[in-house]
Formats: sequence, structure tokens, C-alpha cells
Amino acid sequence: MVERIEADYLVETAHDPRVAVEVMAGEQSSGTFVPVPGETPELKERSAARIEALEIVGERAEPSLPGASHPDGRRILLARATLSWPLANMGPSLPNLMATVAGNLFELKQFSGLRLLDIRLPAAFAAAYPGPKFGIEGTRRLAGVEGRPLIGTIVKPSVGFSPAETADLVRLLAEAGIDFVKDDELQADGLHCPFDERVRAVMRVVNDHADRSGKKVMFAFNLSGEIDEMRRRHDLVLAEGGTCVMASINAVGLSGMIALGRHSELPIHAHRNGWGALSRAPALGFSYVAFQKFWRLAGADHMHVNGLANKFAESDESVIASARACLTPMFADKPCIAMPVFSSGQTVRQPPATFAALGSTDLIYAAGGGIMAHPDGPAAGVESLRQSWAAAMAGIPLETHARDHAALAAALGGRS
Amino acid sequence: MVERIEADYLVETAHDPRVAVEVMAGEQSSGTFVPVPGETPELKERSAARIEALEIVGERAEPSLPGASHPDGRRILLARATLSWPLANMGPSLPNLMATVAGNLFELKQFSGLRLLDIRLPAAFAAAYPGPKFGIEGTRRLAGVEGRPLIGTIVKPSVGFSPAETADLVRLLAEAGIDFVKDDELQADGLHCPFDERVRAVMRVVNDHADRSGKKVMFAFNLSGEIDEMRRRHDLVLAEGGTCVMASINAVGLSGMIALGRHSELPIHAHRNGWGALSRAPALGFSYVAFQKFWRLAGADHMHVNGLANKFAESDESVIASARACLTPMFADKPCIAMPVFSSGQTVRQPPATFAALGSTDLIYAAGGGIMAHPDGPAAGVESLRQSWAAAMAGIPLETHARDHAALAAALGGRS
Repeated sequence: MVERIEADYLVETAHDPRVAVEVMAGEQSSGTFVPVPGETPELKERSAARIEALEIVGERAEPSLPGASHPDGRRILLARATLSWPLANMGPSLPNLMATVAGNLFELKQFSGLRLLDIRLPAAFAAAYPGPKFGIEGTRRLAGVEGRPLIGTIVKPSVGFSPAETADLVRLLAEAGIDFVKDDELQADGLHCPFDERVRAVMRVVNDHADRSGKKVMFAFNLSGEIDEMRRRHDLVLAEGGTCVMASINAVGLSGMIALGRHSELPIHAHRNGWGALSRAPALGFSYVAFQKFWRLAGADHMHVNGLANKFAESDESVIASARACLTPMFADKPCIAMPVFSSGQTVRQPPATFAALGSTDLIYAAGGGIMAHPDGPAAGVESLRQSWAAAMAGIPLETHARDHAALAAALGGRS
Repeated sequence: MVERIEADYLVETAHDPRVAVEVMAGEQSSGTFVPVPGETPELKERSAARIEALEIVGERAEPSLPGASHPDGRRILLARATLSWPLANMGPSLPNLMATVAGNLFELKQFSGLRLLDIRLPAAFAAAYPGPKFGIEGTRRLAGVEGRPLIGTIVKPSVGFSPAETADLVRLLAEAGIDFVKDDELQADGLHCPFDERVRAVMRVVNDHADRSGKKVMFAFNLSGEIDEMRRRHDLVLAEGGTCVMASINAVGLSGMIALGRHSELPIHAHRNGWGALSRAPALGFSYVAFQKFWRLAGADHMHVNGLANKFAESDESVIASARACLTPMFADKPCIAMPVFSSGQTVRQPPATFAALGSTDLIYAAGGGIMAHPDGPAAGVESLRQSWAAAMAGIPLETHARDHAALAAALGGRS
């Protein structure tokens, strides 16, 4: 049985779409722009990429991206194309898969738009990579939260606090009943807040609180850095009794995240900062549906998906599609489910629409101002978010639920 | 002395540009979208990003990217902004620098365009990273080529050859007088051409040829993969007498490339496949001038820059700006110069314009069809490229030089 990798693209071209997609298939496998000795029929059979599907889906008045060639008088068509490659070309290697399905093709002159929409991988990839070691179940177990989302927040100010100031904030949040706290992605190992000191200071607070209350707050320590640094930092978090580490996937990169994934004995909170550069031009780059599969396979347990009505440019539809993708199994025997992380301007107002669209509470719901700026303080802030989720899950309108839930009422009335 | 990191951006906004850039500076340092307890004047002084310069440079009729907020009746302005950060925020860490200067900002709603144009780093980065260990001088020494570009080519078909077929092609190219050969980025460790077998088969040919002729062809073996794989593969290439390794920087990522850079005892040929996704939308992503600095510092000795009149969508101006950037020192005491690699549809026709624009021969000039499809065979193909470069360097028009240089004449007359 030949096992093939499949990738779906949205392409925009003023050429015959089939000819243009053939160029793309050639460029990304055994072909090149002039005939080459050695490209025999046997070699092509063995190694060439194949067009599995091609469908015209629209038309454009103007090219979305500059630099494309445009034969006189031709219309610019939008097409959905599926290519496939033999697994043998690159083997089950995520970095080399990336170079194949998302390599030298975004710049091809035939296209004024080219976006990777999705990928499907042979089971050999499931066997070759760790995938999330904790996922939803492991995260819930370590955080001690069942039947509702983890309510989380982010250390703010993002950067500038000392370890002691960070720990003070974590104490406040722990006492407020928070489930999950994360470092900001800007805070890794800066001069004023060295990683090791921060871990020790924060874990003293987290462990003390757990000893007293039985609840261990999950803190995602941002260990982004070089491979050996990340392994060492992970080991420190583990030794101090921590339950989560965080890394910036685009800054660390695939090989680094794979190394961390193989090494880790803690859930990996994958921060996608920089994602906008790869996705915000609609005719270029990656759909998150394709992108997140690389990182889940590498070992990400939590994946950022932005949030509804966020402060960024992303639409709600796109946010929900991303979250659904994280919750969709990748392989029958190895689903590699990652817990989606909702954040960015999240308050008590978004849970009903979030739950209605997603149909799941298997997520981390991270709010900043929604907690710290609650008129009755952080404890009421956390409580108000739990109340909002309870209302959402029960199908009760927020205003109704607020009648006998004071924290929610205050959040809805105040600056929430 | 406070040392600060600087980054230049091109931004597009329908808001007051100063207010929008202040949001960006806040988002990427100590601020957030609501006031936060703890963001004291002292903390801001210590950690806040600063606007160093802001200049309106143009106007747009329509937003370049979707999702931006647009206050009624306001014009969309284009501005060049320079931000700075204290080094203390992230320390001299390339991954954390990336998360800071190119993190959660491309998606900010205030902007319908945001592109990183350049970065300038404190000397602490030079001290913290290896930078290119070979660069121009080391590459020339190992390849035995002085006073002219290295003439190179890429194994084609890109993928599908066995190790023996690859070695046969390398024998042909070595006998043709080639200086440099690289694996295609699609060929790393596939089933039909395992890395170790390919290295042994190719190095037998390269070493035999060196023994006979005194000239050792530099072959860049694509070792892209996981960290431990890359280190092991590097060691094999070194043990077999090889003189170069290649990696796909966007597929491997920064932490992986840093690990390779620290480990390597061979020049690292950095392949930028996937670059189009980060750069092709003019209002989004990265300029190569900014981008290449990360990889040079991580250890890249050779950086791909595309070529003039290439088969991709990039303009010649952009190609030359990229090549110049690679040849521009990063630090006074540690220039970190990388050798630019020209490729993509390069033939005898581009050297005059390339040399005129760049004023340097410190580059690798890689041609595919320009060598293999020469009417008199690959040896004449290589010879014709050297003749074209000799003409370019002497300021002699190609047609004139071709009068008494047969290989060049045939290349110009035939399908070059």
C-alpha cells in the first residue's frame, strides 16, 4: 500500500488553473522549470506529487498579491486544489513535511494567491511523534477541574515585574480561585525576572496554596529559548512541583518544539505569537486548521486560538474553526487532541456564544481585565466568569442568570 | 548605559498613527488594553517599549489587510515607525527577541498593515551567539575558489534519485568543474535516498575527484530534521570529509538552527523555503533585511536570496536588497557576514546586472538548467557561467565576450 500525504490549497491564478497547479506539484516534487535528464517515468511514478482534486471556486477582479504573471486577457480564478505526495519522499519528518507542503511555493509566479488550508498525514507520522502527552484529560487531572472550562489569566503587566511581584500576583489570583495562570510571551528569562527565580517564587505560592486549599493552580512558565535551556527549565519546573510549561512555537520553531515535546513530562502550553504574519493576508500563508496539526503532533497540549470578539483582527468564524480543529482527532488510534486556549479581550460576555459555537467546555478561558478589573476584585472576577460559563452551559441568558448571581451582575454592569 | 533593541516597521492605520503605534509599543511590552494594577511609572521606565521615530510616508485608498478597525471618515495612512525595548526585557535570546519584535502585533486591530523592516541589536547578542563560523573566507578556503563567485547547482530531479544516482550526477558535475552542489530542500532523508547512504555515496565521488584533481567540490547535504538527527548527520558529513551542511531554516526553526550553529564544524547553508509566506504580502510579515539577521546570528554561513529575473514573484530590487543585507556587518567587532546564494532560473544572462547592482563576487551563483541544458553539456555549462562572470567583472558586454568564448556563445545562442 502506498501511503500519501495530502494537502489542500486555495490558489489564485490568471493561468489555466490545472497548468498552474501542475507547476506547483512539479516544483514541490520531482519536476523543475526545464526538462531534466533523469526525470524518468519510473522516477515520476515513484516521487512526483499528484493533483488529487481541483475545483474553481471563484474569481477576483484584481490579484491579491503582487508579482504574479498574468497572460493577456485572462481572468483571475480562485481554485481549491488538493495535492498528494508519496510518504517516501520525506518520510515521517515534520520539518521536512513543512518544507514540502509549505516550502518554495508561496512565491511561484503563476499564483497571485496561495494558502495552505489543510493537511492529512499517513499513520507513520502518528507513530513517529509524541503528540500531546496530557491533552484535555491530563490537563483537567493536573488542574483539578472537571465539567467546565479552566478559568485562566495572564500575568500583567506582561513584562517588568520581579519574581516576588509575580508571586504576589499569583497569590492574589490563587486566593481568587483561579485555575490557570500563564506568563506573558514577552516574559521568559529577562534580567528583572530570571526564569529560575520566578519559578521558585511562584511555585512557593502555588504549593503553599495547594497545601492549604487542596487546589493546585496550573501555572504555565514561559521557557522559550534554546533547546538545552528549555530542557533544563522544564526539569526545574517539574522539580518544583509545577504542572505546565509554555513555549512560543513560532519563535522556537518545529525542531525545538519536537525536542521539548519528546523531553517533556508536563503539559506544553503552545503560544502562537507571530501567527498573524503567517495568516492575516487571506490569500497567503496558512489556515490554522493546517498549521495547528504540526504543533499538536510535535507535542502541544494547549493551543492558542484567540477568542470571540477579540481585540485582534481575526473574525469569530475563524476563531471557532481553529478551536474545532484542535478538538478534531488527527488519527483514529492517536487523536492528538489539544485543548484550545481562548484569550484576548475575553470577559463574561463571550461564554454563551463560545459554547453555542463550539459545543464543548474542553478549553482554557483566559481573561485579563475581565478578572483584575472586576468592580469587586479578582475573586469576584473569577467567580463571574464561572457563572457566565454555567449560564452558557445551561442555556440561560446572562442577564437572567445575573439576577441571582452577584459577581456576574457586577461584571455585566461594570466595566467588564 | 541602557542598551536597547530597535526595530523599524512599516505600518498602515486609519487611527492617529502615534496612538496606534503607542498601542503596539504597549502590547509588546508592559501595557495592555485596560489599565492594570502594578504598571507603575517605575515599571514603565524599566520595561516599556519606546517610540523612537514616527514618520508618515504615504496614504492608501483601501486597507491592505482585512479586519482592521476604521474610525469614520479617517484616511488610511502609511507610516514608518521605530520602536525600542530595553535589552533587560528578554536578554540576548533570539527566540525571545522574535516573540518581542515579531510576536502578537501583526494582528492588532489598529493596523491594516504591519511589516518588520529592520532590527538593530545591542552587542550582547553578538557575544551570546556563534554567528557564521565560516562565512565568505571560510567557504572560499574550503571550496578553493577566490576572486569570483562559486558556481553551483542543485541536484535535480529534486527528489526521487537513489544515492547511487545522486552520486553519478555529482561525478558528472565534478568533472564539469562545478564548485558547489546542493541537495534540493525536498531531499533530506527519504526512503529512496536515505541521508547516510547519500552522504557516503556522494563523498566517495567528491573525495575521489579531489584526490585526482586537487579540487574538492563543496556539497551541501540537507540534514534538516530533529536536533539530535541534525547533530548526528553533521558528524557523519564531517567524518566523510564533507565541507557543507544545509538546513531549511523555516522548517527547522530558530532554536533548532541555534543548536546546529553551536554544534557545527562546517559551513551551514541556510535554505529559506517557506519565506514567501512571511513576505509576499507587501503590508505584512518581514522584510528579508530584518529576517536574515536572526539566522546569521544563529550561525548561517550561506543565505538564499533568490536571483535576478527569477522564476518567482520577487522583484530584482528586493533580491539585491537582500543580498546587500547579508554582506552588511551586523556588529563592528563581529560582522556575521553570510554569503548570499543566488538561485532560481539563473543562467549566463544575469551575472552582469547582478555584479553591477551588488559590486561584489562574494556569492554562490547556482544554476540548474543553465548548466545541465547547455547545448555542449554540463562542462560547457559551468564554463559559460564562469565566462559570463568574468565578462561582468571586467565590464565587457556578454555579446562581446562571447566572440572568443565558445561556451558563453553557445549558452547565449541556445536555450540558456
